[in-house]
Amino acid sequence: MDSRTAQFEHRLRDNAIKVEAMLALLLADTCLGGERARPASLLAAMRHGVLNGGKRLRPFLVIESAALLGGDADAALRIGAALECVHCYSLVHDDLPAMDDDDLRRGKPTVHIAYDEATAILAGDSLLTYAFDIIAAPETALPPAQKIELVLALARASGIGGMAGGQALDLAAEKDTPDEQGIMTLQAMKTGALIRFGCEAGAIIAGADNEIRARLSAFGEKIGLAFQLADDLLDLTADAATMGKATGKDAARGKGTLVSLHGQKWVEAALARQVQEATELLAPFGEKASALIAAARFVASRKN
Amino acid sequence: MDSRTAQFEHRLRDNAIKVEAMLALLLADTCLGGERARPASLLAAMRHGVLNGGKRLRPFLVIESAALLGGDADAALRIGAALECVHCYSLVHDDLPAMDDDDLRRGKPTVHIAYDEATAILAGDSLLTYAFDIIAAPETALPPAQKIELVLALARASGIGGMAGGQALDLAAEKDTPDEQGIMTLQAMKTGALIRFGCEAGAIIAGADNEIRARLSAFGEKIGLAFQLADDLLDLTADAATMGKATGKDAARGKGTLVSLHGQKWVEAALARQVQEATELLAPFGEKASALIAAARFVASRKN
Repeated sequence: MDSRTAQFEHRLRDNAIKVEAMLALLLADTCLGGERARPASLLAAMRHGVLNGGKRLRPFLVIESAALLGGDADAALRIGAALECVHCYSLVHDDLPAMDDDDLRRGKPTVHIAYDEATAILAGDSLLTYAFDIIAAPETALPPAQKIELVLALARASGIGGMAGGQALDLAAEKDTPDEQGIMTLQAMKTGALIRFGCEAGAIIAGADNEIRARLSAFGEKIGLAFQLADDLLDLTADAATMGKATGKDAARGKGTLVSLHGQKWVEAALARQVQEATELLAPFGEKASALIAAARFVASRKN
Repeated sequence: MDSRTAQFEHRLRDNAIKVEAMLALLLADTCLGGERARPASLLAAMRHGVLNGGKRLRPFLVIESAALLGGDADAALRIGAALECVHCYSLVHDDLPAMDDDDLRRGKPTVHIAYDEATAILAGDSLLTYAFDIIAAPETALPPAQKIELVLALARASGIGGMAGGQALDLAAEKDTPDEQGIMTLQAMKTGALIRFGCEAGAIIAGADNEIRARLSAFGEKIGLAFQLADDLLDLTADAATMGKATGKDAARGKGTLVSLHGQKWVEAALARQVQEATELLAPFGEKASALIAAARFVASRKN
């Protein structure tokens, strides 16, 4: 591991600790104004689904994008936590028996195994709802106009035109066998949209102009695609112990990926190209963008 | 039926037509900015869950509360539609096999029966997400500060401290047998919170001061409770054909309600008292509040 990689991984871990602490605070056993109670088992299921030692890559993107553009650090941490709530809700629902039917996530029982299916459904619902609560809450010190832009961008990234729509396409892909364009759309929605939002959110938090916001968004788009390409390669090669979840499932289900369509070499080349183009997008920011560029390389080379 | 009741029912139907049209427009097969696609089967499932000929009581409360206080009518219609998306998502998820396991809703197959469980989960998720999209969208012509108040109030009414939390308490009630206070909290969260939000939203849309907002909120709280008391009575007396769904389920499950705790007469008296107190809260507005007061009476006397 070169020193640049070591430095990045240290920064990512440092960030994950802060995000975990913020999430633990947000999911404490204390009612906020307008809340009547936080039922114990539902709160515990939400915490189980969120406080799981994840890498917190999406919040990292929010925090580093905001930092690059001079955005408020505390607001970025809170928006990062909101984004992580959406990401984790999607995992809780995705693991349900009617969806991917996974019993393990990061080597621990999934929420519907640790609790029950009804509680897992409600915990996912509550985490999704809470993401918008966090953005709107008075503790997130941003002007209302910026908060509303964040609400809109997060809703579009998460809903039928984004992540949830991508999951629907993914379910259909088991029998539809989409072509290359279909796979790209599916992946851009299912995985890419939240990652892109993470980068765009930093620009919104910093009140950046449209050109810079579009640039960060394009950067996010590319590392979102890189993330998925790396995932497809991992599904092919990694074993379950490294991933902490079942692997080889795509192939077992006959689900089309770019690997099955074009082969491993093509995907490795496409992955390298995404990282290169992502890096070029941030060239105008010089050395200041090094954490984000390291994140792009990390996404492409991750082992789990 | 007296002429006042007939007039109210006409107004409610007229309103429902407008809300249905707005929901159909919002759920059209057209991508909004930032959306990459609206997958057909997911969109169809969302439409199935929403465009079902409901009474649209919650949007009615938003629209009439806003009208009472001079709020923008189009914005109120859109916020009403957003609230209905949350209400309908909760029904889609509540009907799932792991939750209430209902095959029928308004005499039609529920979403997981008409489509499948995975699609129903995603349709509910997407409807919830879309509610926040609608509030934040540029087409909703309200100042950002008011939109953020709406996002926060809706999130608190819907999440762990509101509706979803109430559903968790409701699931637990089958074995916990809560006391009177426990039942009141459960109901205020599960059913009351969204109804209360409907009335409070009108005040937010109109930019009303805190005293008026609190008054509308208290009014909503009372009709939310009245709604649930009427529901408990209906569960005791109505048949499945009138309700368009299975009835007598509370008793069959041994689930505690105020009816099982105090008997029918006590609940009928409590219901009348809620309507009386709700009416008194709006007395300062005089004749202008007649539609909302009629709504309170309607909620208490509804037959399905």
